[in-house]
Amino acid sequence: MKAYRQALNLFRLAPIKRAMASVDTSNKGQASGAAAEFAAAHSADHPLKLYGGWFCPFVQRAWIVLAEKKIPHQYIEINPYHKAPEFLALNPRGLVPTLAVPVEGGAKNLKPLYESTVICEYLDEAFPDEANFGPRLLPPDDVYERARCRLWIDHVGSRIVPAFYRFIQHTPDKPHSIEDVSSEFLGHLKAFVKEMDSNGPWFLGERFSLVDVMLAPWAKRLFLIDHYKPGGVGIPAAGERGEDEEVWSRWEKWRDAVFARESVKKTWSNEDQYIDVYKRYAEDTTGSEVGKATRQGKSLP
Amino acid sequence: MKAYRQALNLFRLAPIKRAMASVDTSNKGQASGAAAEFAAAHSADHPLKLYGGWFCPFVQRAWIVLAEKKIPHQYIEINPYHKAPEFLALNPRGLVPTLAVPVEGGAKNLKPLYESTVICEYLDEAFPDEANFGPRLLPPDDVYERARCRLWIDHVGSRIVPAFYRFIQHTPDKPHSIEDVSSEFLGHLKAFVKEMDSNGPWFLGERFSLVDVMLAPWAKRLFLIDHYKPGGVGIPAAGERGEDEEVWSRWEKWRDAVFARESVKKTWSNEDQYIDVYKRYAEDTTGSEVGKATRQGKSLP
Repeated sequence: MKAYRQALNLFRLAPIKRAMASVDTSNKGQASGAAAEFAAAHSADHPLKLYGGWFCPFVQRAWIVLAEKKIPHQYIEINPYHKAPEFLALNPRGLVPTLAVPVEGGAKNLKPLYESTVICEYLDEAFPDEANFGPRLLPPDDVYERARCRLWIDHVGSRIVPAFYRFIQHTPDKPHSIEDVSSEFLGHLKAFVKEMDSNGPWFLGERFSLVDVMLAPWAKRLFLIDHYKPGGVGIPAAGERGEDEEVWSRWEKWRDAVFARESVKKTWSNEDQYIDVYKRYAEDTTGSEVGKATRQGKSLP
Repeated sequence: MKAYRQALNLFRLAPIKRAMASVDTSNKGQASGAAAEFAAAHSADHPLKLYGGWFCPFVQRAWIVLAEKKIPHQYIEINPYHKAPEFLALNPRGLVPTLAVPVEGGAKNLKPLYESTVICEYLDEAFPDEANFGPRLLPPDDVYERARCRLWIDHVGSRIVPAFYRFIQHTPDKPHSIEDVSSEFLGHLKAFVKEMDSNGPWFLGERFSLVDVMLAPWAKRLFLIDHYKPGGVGIPAAGERGEDEEVWSRWEKWRDAVFARESVKKTWSNEDQYIDVYKRYAEDTTGSEVGKATRQGKSLP
């Protein structure tokens, strides 16, 4: 497999090399605030390594699971525009988050995982002991509910998240109006909220799950659309919601619970730092893989 | 939850209604050949129901799992352009495949699942008894290998499948050349093949898994690109592959094993019927949700 993986690396790096010529390299930031403390507390060498970027919402998904389950690990900040060779050797896609997993005898033999949803489900399955790591993040005893969770995790990834990027990267020259991208985003969000347990606060009710984890990083980043886009996200104010009163108040109950969750707070930097980084998304000039895929109308990497 | 689901249905049906005005309604086909026999053998009422379309590769994924594990079920053919109300009531997205799952006391209380990957993993988890249903389709005893399977299932769904539709729906007026879409597709396919167990025949070696299931329906449909596109798929002939000899011969070993698999053969209709249905894809005039999403550069539904 090693030879295959090396061949795969060579193949997969080509598009990344091409991309680098066109991207800004000014973001050399590190986490700040609570996220900086959490990263520093996990900077010591450990066989389980999360390679991340402090501003990346896909990374925050994996980071939240590590914090939620208090899983011992090492966090390594990757400069997305100057990727360390040992990182690129682990991840054929050259994207964060990447998890280095010790197998067959520990630290000498690391295998990579990537794709935030795959990493999160792996961490929940690899650390199942509820006495040490807290409640499982997918219901372990209900096959249908577990499938329903995966269904709405898919809805977040295939509908809400792409619509978020079409929204924040919208510029007046785009074929669709800002009203169109706003209503597309809000429609996908409402469909999700209507599937939530009616009492909450979480998607499954009392039980915090991977469904909550998957959307949390974008809930935290909605303020960037309010900051950069005329009209903002467009969720109507209480009293002006008509038949949507129930769905938007349920949304706020969930959002407030997410914002108060320790694992979310621990993986969040100072907000002015996000405003700075996402300026290039708002102007649709970002060179990030996600930003370019959105601009080109392709599935997100 | 019922009220929420009904509200959700109302919300989700709107775009489908809008779509119907513009789509051809001539496809009223039924499965033929082996698939017709398999459908007929599962036409009797059963609480576990697969709502499908004979020509849909996403449906074939779920159908292959049902056939592979010999799971008792009822197959119901859905006319994609005249969807039965009881089907639309079950599935807020109005898409096939949809699985109706008996819960809390059987046939009177059906809950829906959709998204082919979610349905397939559900079926493997809901029928785990290897004595009755054969080997598990995700390795049950190896957390890392299970995650690696999900990683390459994601690669199929997020890279190979969208590239397949960009390829078969390519027309000369498109911004990208047919050579570009061909090399994009072949690049994603090669990356997948290079991750396969080197002996095979399956992705995991001797063990047939959901990774094989996820790609099989598009492997079966590659002949449509050879039929409709100048130059065809573009996999070089043996002897003309240079450094890619190893990867393309490994591909052929896997493809031949897939074509010979009983569960794949049982869910396949006569090829002339696929040629007829996919003509509208090849001309990029299909009104299918997948076809329109590809044309609009959005993630697949």
